[in-house]
Amino acid sequence: MINAGIVGASGYTGGELMRLLLNHPYVNIETATSRRLSGEAVSDTHKHLRGLVDIEFEDLSPEDIRGRCDVVFVAVPHGTAMNIVPELIDDNTKVIDLSADYRLKTSIFEKVYNMEHANPRDAVFGLVELHPEVKDESFVANPGCYPTGAILSAAPLAAAKLLKMAIFDSKSGITGAGINPTMASHYPNMAENVQAYKLTTHRHREEILQELNRLDNAFTDVNFTPHVVPSIRGILTTAHLFTKEKMSLEDVREFYHEFYKDKPFVRVVDDIPSLSAVRGSNFCDIGFEVDANTGRIVVVSAIDNLVKGASGQAIQNMNLMCGFDETTGLRIAATSP
Amino acid sequence: MINAGIVGASGYTGGELMRLLLNHPYVNIETATSRRLSGEAVSDTHKHLRGLVDIEFEDLSPEDIRGRCDVVFVAVPHGTAMNIVPELIDDNTKVIDLSADYRLKTSIFEKVYNMEHANPRDAVFGLVELHPEVKDESFVANPGCYPTGAILSAAPLAAAKLLKMAIFDSKSGITGAGINPTMASHYPNMAENVQAYKLTTHRHREEILQELNRLDNAFTDVNFTPHVVPSIRGILTTAHLFTKEKMSLEDVREFYHEFYKDKPFVRVVDDIPSLSAVRGSNFCDIGFEVDANTGRIVVVSAIDNLVKGASGQAIQNMNLMCGFDETTGLRIAATSP
Amino acid sequence: MINAGIVGASGYTGGELMRLLLNHPYVNIETATSRRLSGEAVSDTHKHLRGLVDIEFEDLSPEDIRGRCDVVFVAVPHGTAMNIVPELIDDNTKVIDLSADYRLKTSIFEKVYNMEHANPRDAVFGLVELHPEVKDESFVANPGCYPTGAILSAAPLAAAKLLKMAIFDSKSGITGAGINPTMASHYPNMAENVQAYKLTTHRHREEILQELNRLDNAFTDVNFTPHVVPSIRGILTTAHLFTKEKMSLEDVREFYHEFYKDKPFVRVVDDIPSLSAVRGSNFCDIGFEVDANTGRIVVVSAIDNLVKGASGQAIQNMNLMCGFDETTGLRIAATSP
Amino acid sequence: MINAGIVGASGYTGGELMRLLLNHPYVNIETATSRRLSGEAVSDTHKHLRGLVDIEFEDLSPEDIRGRCDVVFVAVPHGTAMNIVPELIDDNTKVIDLSADYRLKTSIFEKVYNMEHANPRDAVFGLVELHPEVKDESFVANPGCYPTGAILSAAPLAAAKLLKMAIFDSKSGITGAGINPTMASHYPNMAENVQAYKLTTHRHREEILQELNRLDNAFTDVNFTPHVVPSIRGILTTAHLFTKEKMSLEDVREFYHEFYKDKPFVRVVDDIPSLSAVRGSNFCDIGFEVDANTGRIVVVSAIDNLVKGASGQAIQNMNLMCGFDETTGLRIAATSP
Repeated sequence: MINAGIVGASGYTGGELMRLLLNHPYVNIETATSRRLSGEAVSDTHKHLRGLVDIEFEDLSPEDIRGRCDVVFVAVPHGTAMNIVPELIDDNTKVIDLSADYRLKTSIFEKVYNMEHANPRDAVFGLVELHPEVKDESFVANPGCYPTGAILSAAPLAAAKLLKMAIFDSKSGITGAGINPTMASHYPNMAENVQAYKLTTHRHREEILQELNRLDNAFTDVNFTPHVVPSIRGILTTAHLFTKEKMSLEDVREFYHEFYKDKPFVRVVDDIPSLSAVRGSNFCDIGFEVDANTGRIVVVSAIDNLVKGASGQAIQNMNLMCGFDETTGLRIAATSP
Repeated sequence: MINAGIVGASGYTGGELMRLLLNHPYVNIETATSRRLSGEAVSDTHKHLRGLVDIEFEDLSPEDIRGRCDVVFVAVPHGTAMNIVPELIDDNTKVIDLSADYRLKTSIFEKVYNMEHANPRDAVFGLVELHPEVKDESFVANPGCYPTGAILSAAPLAAAKLLKMAIFDSKSGITGAGINPTMASHYPNMAENVQAYKLTTHRHREEILQELNRLDNAFTDVNFTPHVVPSIRGILTTAHLFTKEKMSLEDVREFYHEFYKDKPFVRVVDDIPSLSAVRGSNFCDIGFEVDANTGRIVVVSAIDNLVKGASGQAIQNMNLMCGFDETTGLRIAATSP
Repeated sequence: MINAGIVGASGYTGGELMRLLLNHPYVNIETATSRRLSGEAVSDTHKHLRGLVDIEFEDLSPEDIRGRCDVVFVAVPHGTAMNIVPELIDDNTKVIDLSADYRLKTSIFEKVYNMEHANPRDAVFGLVELHPEVKDESFVANPGCYPTGAILSAAPLAAAKLLKMAIFDSKSGITGAGINPTMASHYPNMAENVQAYKLTTHRHREEILQELNRLDNAFTDVNFTPHVVPSIRGILTTAHLFTKEKMSLEDVREFYHEFYKDKPFVRVVDDIPSLSAVRGSNFCDIGFEVDANTGRIVVVSAIDNLVKGASGQAIQNMNLMCGFDETTGLRIAATSP
Repeated sequence: MINAGIVGASGYTGGELMRLLLNHPYVNIETATSRRLSGEAVSDTHKHLRGLVDIEFEDLSPEDIRGRCDVVFVAVPHGTAMNIVPELIDDNTKVIDLSADYRLKTSIFEKVYNMEHANPRDAVFGLVELHPEVKDESFVANPGCYPTGAILSAAPLAAAKLLKMAIFDSKSGITGAGINPTMASHYPNMAENVQAYKLTTHRHREEILQELNRLDNAFTDVNFTPHVVPSIRGILTTAHLFTKEKMSLEDVREFYHEFYKDKPFVRVVDDIPSLSAVRGSNFCDIGFEVDANTGRIVVVSAIDNLVKGASGQAIQNMNLMCGFDETTGLRIAATSP
């Protein structure tokens, strides 16, 4: 048994970490921190945890957390994590940061997030399927939700240096915007609606670009447009991919199956993935077609933004970092329908 | 490890049994039968089980099922179950029937379902919170979804012989109507809508009546009206209860806490339950208020119709029948939000 | 042509008044006021009115409004309306108040809303079907959304002095809570959920009681419990009615048809009403059944809370107050599906 | 007053034609035909029309229809319309065909729909914004829903011969699939989900191609991928457009404003359109951004698939063909929220 702490546990990713860790045979939820809710029962905020998680939020110093935990999940906003993370890491405490603070190269981060980085530090980008070296790390930057689905949809072709241009058109559930109500998340605005936003300027493009570019340093033509759809959870990414030369469906299929053959949470399917089959689970489903008219390859990936796109992936990272089997506690089926 | 079989596994309760049994440490899913889909992969129908359940549907005789399974869940329609159940039960095979065929006294069943019962037999009504004798049974009739939430909302007062009249106004997710599309389940008809149906004639009234009447044989004034709401899962029951004499909120609270104090899946809460906090889980949340104007007691119960209202409760029954702890494999948090 | 003003036009009822008045052949939208948004285009807030309503919000004194308008709709919160209404009414200006300030007898209002009334004044309760005298008034208090559906569901039996007890179990779309985001209206909380609230203490009970009591001064046993359901618009009320003596379905039907025979916006139907068929329209659909077991009469009424439950009904009042045909500009079909 | 007939009036487009025509000052709904429902009240199927449309479905020969109607809307499936249309058209009867049978050049139609055309005939493609010659026609082929939103999103740049490549990623409400329930429209499958389909092979691509190619005969690189989202109505199209040379946002804006300056149903907006603001209305909202990284132009268009994408556009065609003002009966605001 190891002890886990969750810093900033009052939001959706915090709640989801606890939901999933309850199912993990080797982890004890040692502490869940929240400055604002300190002293209140965790299950007053996360009512689905009533009867299951009986602790109160605490307001702890990084050093107290470090002292009590073998692994710490940092689930605070970007710009805040960078002030906590360095104090959490030591020889006995592994850290997984769910914020954006350590995903990008510092110079890129500073430009994209328009702020100076208080504590630059190298971190592995914790997309396990592309970064098996996670298992040797004590600090990992957990990927963004959109990048997870987008990168996985294009990685096999990028790794083969076949890509010329990519457009990622993503459709996300509204939990991606957080636990606090906004005009965008107001039911009368969100229900029965589709809302595109940041058509050309979403920061997650940089994560997608960085990781695909790492697979093929000549490939940089990355386009990304996000939308919110009337769904609580999930991101469906429709990747419109253009390769240097036209490919057959059989060739595409072979690349994907080969690339993901030992990846337990990527399911390459013969039909078209949808959110329903991954809801609440850590799977990424991937399917595709080749456009006979134009040669375009359309890849569709589906994830749960709170699981594979955040908390589940964080636990997947933890498993490797702590020497557990990658799937421990995560072989749960989607809550479907 | 015991071997479990699911008869009629192509529907929602079948899928849900498998989702939950995957999480059970002592159960192997030995077979999933479907006459219609025999030979097809289970995960072609239940796509969320891809990579987790690798068997095919089989078309087996009751005796073959019996031979291979220690416990069998029967998830076929009412009127069909009665022809299978008797052949499944033997000294080594326990059976949980999720259909309506054995929930009611035979004479009532025949009247309410307007058919002759092919194989009458006594069965315990598997609402564990009221029927702890389940643990000694080898055959249990799993309760209906509406009755589960309705009975649990009124049982403490019925058991104390305080009830005079009850109106159960239930709001159900549409999965209660099954996996096959109908006009009622057509998204343009169901979304943004509320549809009351069988305002005074739903068959589940008889289960509610039978069980409350068992607690208080003088109490028979039971009214039930179901509605479908735009939700995939869940049943919220608003029980408008009238007692012989007015009661204080404190008294009501005490009855409920006392009645459910050792029941791990009933959470008596201080606020008002909602579907979100039980989605995908086996919990029944119960809250209440007393009407200062009229003395009416309003009790609200929330369950997931496919879990506590069907497959989860069936596994809860199995746990007791097979000598496991009641909560084994079922202490899972709701997929919330 | 008459000139209409809308005071407090930035909310849902303001937007809806404009949507509907655009369709009225004899009304010009002269002004839409909002202190907060003064100077901004109305269609920046109500984007569906782009290209149709080209005015800006104004911040006007009551006397300026009165000077420019023949009829004024007051769509500000309760407690605020009472300070504006008296200054708006004069010989040439008719006023319809959509707030709660003048619906109840002053003494009741002060108790229920827990505030002193700044400007008590008698007003007709503008439920046209029960108050045809609206046509002679220059000031009308527009009914609350829940009371509209609840009162219409029980009025024929109350008027016949047949009622003994009534329980109104209402299911409302979330626009009833207004245009500003809250935890309750946050899509992840509202979608796939049902939330009961104020189980026994909602203020609208007093409106229902007052009006049914006006029809039968011996009838006071009124119970009301509201819920929000995942729908933008609409209120479905399930009225569980108990009469002094049991009634046949035929008798019930006759009472309802007779009572509503000349009411153009009440449709007594043979099946069970639902929100879909009234969405966006001014209709109230009513259906019913009699419980053979208990004598309970279940009446279901469906309205659009923003139309018949607010802005449409206000225009219906305006039509009568201004001498137009009751249906002018309101014979629009629901946007269905 | 003119008399209108609707052939095949039992589906969604038939219901919507009636909803909208009720609001048209110069049109009488003379007949609504349905072979299957002949003799039944129209409002038994379209319950929102109760009290508004009092006719029964009829089963009439084309010649009877022709004899009674000045204008006929054909709302039957593709492959069926071609057998009716030719018999409906004469000197006194104008016909608008909502099916796909006459939208494409015959040779293309036969290839794409994989059938022989029984009665080839030239027809104007009734996208009024591109085909003002509609006003001189007595027969018009009403555009498909997806093509309407896609073509309008790209037409200004195609007309200026600036386009090099286009990807249309469309998100549609489920009414596009019709009034009959299917697995795809089953609420548990559709709610909280996004389902891409026919990733590269949807027939509507050919309409988009044909019309953009008509504007620029050198432009043929058209890609189209449709999705269904949990919405009853609406199509949001995200057009990823690539021009021969990079363009500034100002230039793009000017092209769109200029192109649509006299088009009453296209609103070029400064923000990002969404389904909510067009629901139930005949508007097409269009907004855009230019990608500073790649030069990609992202255009977002929003329509109601049943109105501007079908029945509303058909009435817009009728207005012009019959000499009415283009906007007659169609200046209705969206039912929003």
